[in-house]
Amino acid sequence: MSLTVLIAPSGFKESLSVNQVAEAIARGIRRAAPHATVLTAPMVDGGEGTTEALIAATGGRMVATTVTGPLGQPVPSFWGMMGGDGPRSAVIEMAAAAGLSLVPRDRRDPTLTTSRGVGELILEALDHGATRILVGCGDSGINDGGAGMARALGARFLDAEGRELPEGGGALERLERIDLAGLDPRLAGVRIDAAVNWHNMLLGPRGVARVFGPQKGATPEQVEALERGMTRHAAAILAAARRDVAGMAGAGASGGLGAGLAGLAGATLHPRFDIMLDYLDFDRLLARADLVITAEGALDGQSPYGKVPCEVARRAEALGVPTVALAGTIGKGARQTYEHGIAAYASIMRRPCSLGKAIDEGGKLLRAAAENTMRMLLVGQRLAWRARGA
Amino acid sequence: MSLTVLIAPSGFKESLSVNQVAEAIARGIRRAAPHATVLTAPMVDGGEGTTEALIAATGGRMVATTVTGPLGQPVPSFWGMMGGDGPRSAVIEMAAAAGLSLVPRDRRDPTLTTSRGVGELILEALDHGATRILVGCGDSGINDGGAGMARALGARFLDAEGRELPEGGGALERLERIDLAGLDPRLAGVRIDAAVNWHNMLLGPRGVARVFGPQKGATPEQVEALERGMTRHAAAILAAARRDVAGMAGAGASGGLGAGLAGLAGATLHPRFDIMLDYLDFDRLLARADLVITAEGALDGQSPYGKVPCEVARRAEALGVPTVALAGTIGKGARQTYEHGIAAYASIMRRPCSLGKAIDEGGKLLRAAAENTMRMLLVGQRLAWRARGA
Repeated sequence: MSLTVLIAPSGFKESLSVNQVAEAIARGIRRAAPHATVLTAPMVDGGEGTTEALIAATGGRMVATTVTGPLGQPVPSFWGMMGGDGPRSAVIEMAAAAGLSLVPRDRRDPTLTTSRGVGELILEALDHGATRILVGCGDSGINDGGAGMARALGARFLDAEGRELPEGGGALERLERIDLAGLDPRLAGVRIDAAVNWHNMLLGPRGVARVFGPQKGATPEQVEALERGMTRHAAAILAAARRDVAGMAGAGASGGLGAGLAGLAGATLHPRFDIMLDYLDFDRLLARADLVITAEGALDGQSPYGKVPCEVARRAEALGVPTVALAGTIGKGARQTYEHGIAAYASIMRRPCSLGKAIDEGGKLLRAAAENTMRMLLVGQRLAWRARGA
Repeated sequence: MSLTVLIAPSGFKESLSVNQVAEAIARGIRRAAPHATVLTAPMVDGGEGTTEALIAATGGRMVATTVTGPLGQPVPSFWGMMGGDGPRSAVIEMAAAAGLSLVPRDRRDPTLTTSRGVGELILEALDHGATRILVGCGDSGINDGGAGMARALGARFLDAEGRELPEGGGALERLERIDLAGLDPRLAGVRIDAAVNWHNMLLGPRGVARVFGPQKGATPEQVEALERGMTRHAAAILAAARRDVAGMAGAGASGGLGAGLAGLAGATLHPRFDIMLDYLDFDRLLARADLVITAEGALDGQSPYGKVPCEVARRAEALGVPTVALAGTIGKGARQTYEHGIAAYASIMRRPCSLGKAIDEGGKLLRAAAENTMRMLLVGQRLAWRARGA
């Protein structure tokens, strides 16, 4: 019989990228079932590696470019044009233009860093005729509420005297008004989707300034200044664009970039995996699949709460496709995943061994585990054939 | 659909007895497939634990008794009467009457120890009406060629002057003739099968004296004396019973007990697993099974050479029943087992962890692995049903 397997894993932290995980699993499957059709949907969260993974999965292409970095200097960057026969879709990961790794540790002042480069990447995608743009939010190094991004698209941020504010979240304390007259008119004709952490709020105790400010190097005084700036920012967005980002889920993603995207660039915010699955055309892949194999570093009682294996399994279960999970560690509470669509799981471990060695051998272990799992599934098939023959 | 699973594992060295292994696997299977029928065939090799395992598997009973120990003193011992509806079968493990653990380390003189207790157990089994007796050879502490065992059954070992020799392999150097006139007449009506290591020879460089003498505490001079004694023993057996044990495979098992059993007690020697599988009525169990689950501490490139998983898998494959193997360690060369009937395997490990911890948690890990494996097999069944529906 023909068998189509959809590989939909996460990356293994500190060990394997999502593409490496997918490739290792694919090799294992082919060893056990050479005639199986293998489809791949790498599960990324919008952070670093998102563009590369989506490009690889769809046969798209990477575009190298230079943008304004978070400290105002030019930095090498990239974005991707996805392949496939769907809409002409660009993928941008904000971290490629304004990520924390672009800000040297000794220059981490979140009142000054700018998201301008993200807007420049959006302009490039528009120049290349994208009709749909996915902006992955994660691993950010900025805290400007997406003001820099909006500026690159043509918005002007003005103080009470009508003077343009400097870049950075610190200046937003003096924000009086946002002027959208110069906004790039092409924005009206493009769909922008942002993949955000749905729990990141813009304001208040769980907001950008108070939660992420300190992580990005803000002093307690700067945190309060940023909070005041974000409050003015939200008010100005409401006045200029009639969009209320103050209580919007995900508006606080990536130093408030979510607020700028949704409030000023016409973007729609989405829980991360939902929109990733859409761009990967996951349901169409699922419809072709007999089986889904997912994977993550650990499978445990936390997995049902937003982790890749259970997100994938729930979608698959809705279409009646069984999901099996591979993991480095099968931890406490893993049995709970049975209630969230995981039909069976297996560890990649093959013997007593240290964590360090397991990480070193991750790819090999994963390939072997995929092969063993596939063989086990084929035995299960034989059992069914036996029963059928009986 | 109904599913019948035959559990046929080995014990896990230093961790779990074969019955504990079988029980852990059975519990895991029932968790994943509550309606499955579970059959059990514990794989033992004739050494310590053999009687207990066969009794448990067939619902038989253990008989406690006292016999002459290897040093001539009375020792508590036991044998078993198997259950089931087959022939009235007794099981004796020679180690229970003449095992190495019955000889204190400071009294290990292989020229003196006797297998008499084994003969006494055979007599007890005859007293209880056994029509078939399985003698498991392994873990022996004697080196007398089975002379003591034969004496208990009525044989007389005589020197050139017609005087009875004392017990022990050392005295066989002076053996002139074996007198079988007093042999228990019931031996003619019973079938005795001995489970032996097929590679143990009685004489020569791979013989009892030279290979096992030193392990049992013999000096180089004693080794040579024992070798001469075994040579005379073989000649006397040939003269008295017309059976040639000198080149017989397995005659050297358990300090030459194989020679005594085959040469003087009318026993048939068998490779260990073959006869165990017969007594367990393994082929009849197999005929009822849809699937075999076997297990051993390690699965690796050595497994095809006489280890339980491949022995079981070969028999199962001959009847078209797939075998899956569970192991603590999936070692180098494990893939070779695919060529010897193992359809798929899985490690019981669930995370990076030390060997000590894995041994401590062996039962729990094994139960969980059996459950996961069963779930994986059920997913495979679903794949087949999907294909059937398509």
